Amino acid sequence: MVSVGSVQQLLTPAFTVDIQKVENNATRMIERCRALGVQLRPHMKTHKTLECADIMTGGSRRCIAVSTLAEARFYADHGFDDILYAYPLPFDKVDICMELAECLEMFHVLIDSEVALAELVKRRLKDGKSWLVWLKVDCNNGRAGVRPENPAAVTLANSIATFEGVELAGLYAHCGNSYHATGVQEIQAVAQETTTAILEFMERLEKAGVRCPRCSIGSTPTCSHPIADMARLNELHPGNYIFYDVQQMMIGSCQMDDIAVRVQSRVIGHYPHRNQLLVDCGWTALSLHSLGMLPTGYAIIDGHPDLKLVGMTQEHGRIEPASGKLDFDKFPLGSLISLIPYHACSAAAMHPVYYVHSEGRIVAEWRPTRGW
Amino acid sequence: MVSVGSVQQLLTPAFTVDIQKVENNATRMIERCRALGVQLRPHMKTHKTLECADIMTGGSRRCIAVSTLAEARFYADHGFDDILYAYPLPFDKVDICMELAECLEMFHVLIDSEVALAELVKRRLKDGKSWLVWLKVDCNNGRAGVRPENPAAVTLANSIATFEGVELAGLYAHCGNSYHATGVQEIQAVAQETTTAILEFMERLEKAGVRCPRCSIGSTPTCSHPIADMARLNELHPGNYIFYDVQQMMIGSCQMDDIAVRVQSRVIGHYPHRNQLLVDCGWTALSLHSLGMLPTGYAIIDGHPDLKLVGMTQEHGRIEPASGKLDFDKFPLGSLISLIPYHACSAAAMHPVYYVHSEGRIVAEWRPTRGW
Repeated sequence: MVSVGSVQQLLTPAFTVDIQKVENNATRMIERCRALGVQLRPHMKTHKTLECADIMTGGSRRCIAVSTLAEARFYADHGFDDILYAYPLPFDKVDICMELAECLEMFHVLIDSEVALAELVKRRLKDGKSWLVWLKVDCNNGRAGVRPENPAAVTLANSIATFEGVELAGLYAHCGNSYHATGVQEIQAVAQETTTAILEFMERLEKAGVRCPRCSIGSTPTCSHPIADMARLNELHPGNYIFYDVQQMMIGSCQMDDIAVRVQSRVIGHYPHRNQLLVDCGWTALSLHSLGMLPTGYAIIDGHPDLKLVGMTQEHGRIEPASGKLDFDKFPLGSLISLIPYHACSAAAMHPVYYVHSEGRIVAEWRPTRGW
Repeated sequence: MVSVGSVQQLLTPAFTVDIQKVENNATRMIERCRALGVQLRPHMKTHKTLECADIMTGGSRRCIAVSTLAEARFYADHGFDDILYAYPLPFDKVDICMELAECLEMFHVLIDSEVALAELVKRRLKDGKSWLVWLKVDCNNGRAGVRPENPAAVTLANSIATFEGVELAGLYAHCGNSYHATGVQEIQAVAQETTTAILEFMERLEKAGVRCPRCSIGSTPTCSHPIADMARLNELHPGNYIFYDVQQMMIGSCQMDDIAVRVQSRVIGHYPHRNQLLVDCGWTALSLHSLGMLPTGYAIIDGHPDLKLVGMTQEHGRIEPASGKLDFDKFPLGSLISLIPYHACSAAAMHPVYYVHSEGRIVAEWRPTRGW
């Protein structure tokens, strides 16, 4: 249901998506992977909608990564398949994973411990089907995963490859440490380090006689600026690139013009005595992710680089000029203020609906799945 | 629908509410207001559920404050009345406000400018009904509101009181600056300052011949430790007190034992090489509100004051000991870790359902309204 005609008419706060930019971002990533000769497995965590998943998969509805079981079920319920639940197997949800593994052609899980493997092994899938298990590898990201230099990593891979009822589907690494990079050179250094670490681990597995059919790395910075060696991988699994955001621009993953999303807000108050105006966007609409990260405060204010979003409470945002006196006549009560989010994933997570527009005209409403 | 028997069996992450603590917090605030002889108008913004609203209003379903029009409509649709939309009138939503003003017995709006008043005056309610208009007053909180010492404040109050089709319903101040207090003495200093400012403004209105029937102040710190002069006010409108949280405990509004909510999470990984474990709670489940505010990181880990939630990404939380080596045997994969949130409003805002328990046994599921 499309309820309004234009971005200008939206009730605010509202999360808007520029469909042309989304399609451009999707197309460029598809082409980049094609040029490398690797499979793109887009991650759904940023948007969690069916429509965007269609765009990212080029309409195939196949080969995606998800961050929650709620996403996995949502996509499975709507005809998607070849779904990788790219999250350390949570023991409270193995039975639901089992249902998905049995009803989908390919439902992949991810583990990084023998204990998690035991949880799978003790549940045999029906019809002689095997669990498709990815080994999570930590290539200096410092979150989940086995360290590739640890001999136990080869042992675990071997266990997955040889135990009854499970199958080693691949190696999975998230190069989230690329978020600490600034500029293409630093991004590509992380890409090289991660790629090399994964390829060396693949070699060690081969030498140990462990058959591992695939390896996959991903992060929006590295996949936006791939290095030549990434052609030797089998899959890439970036996610945020579909929207991009100020953080990615600052890292060097994209240009300002590639950022597809905004939080639209309106002026709700003028306070000349403290040189501030209020907008109807608080942390329920933008999140607080930018805290301390931007010279312009919690976001960049589209078209007004001289303004600063200096504070937010639950439903209010305080804006003031970087310097000098604010010209309140330029921002009448009720006028629209467009915020470019620092982190698209966290801003999107606050919205039950995204308003999709083409040059300002609303063309669709996308409703993400939520929960876990 | 109650899907599980106990907190231990919940799929995580999950937001849990201790019903006894909620009822105690509600009862104490009701009694505090009764003792002062003022009307309690509980604010719904923290929980946004029907069930909790029933508890806060003592079952009357009358006299509440809300932060969004979505809340106003949700409560109106479910038989609530005397609803104060405690937010600077947003010009894109005046027509919806008009519908509520016409169908409810009492739907109150709030303004702080002549421009906003003009938006009301140009829309005449049917059947000779008047808009019930509260004047927002800024008593050193520095967000919305007219400054009470500004002569224009009296002029605006007079306009509201005298214009056709509108009626001055009261003065409304949020003493959010009490959040900068530490300890009862500092909280009560803010309570005194706000109360005095509002009462003096009421006197100025009376001298100017402007009839204002009510004044209301509110914030959980000040309403948890009211001062004697607050008996001279007409209403109090706190909200967070129904749950409380670590922030309120640090301010001095409550004791640790009063905090009614937790984010339940589970251990999903052991990483001895960096002395950390991972839990399945990232910022999608807890928010990042505590950034830099707590010695224990992003939350307090219930029962483990020696642990620290040092980092979160979208779906992962990293926990390590404050010092020394982590005893991983005490935290097996799959075991429950209970997080006490720094800010209950922002943690609750991340959850589509709250699991309500009595001594660990799930007794209800509450579903908040979202959006604007």
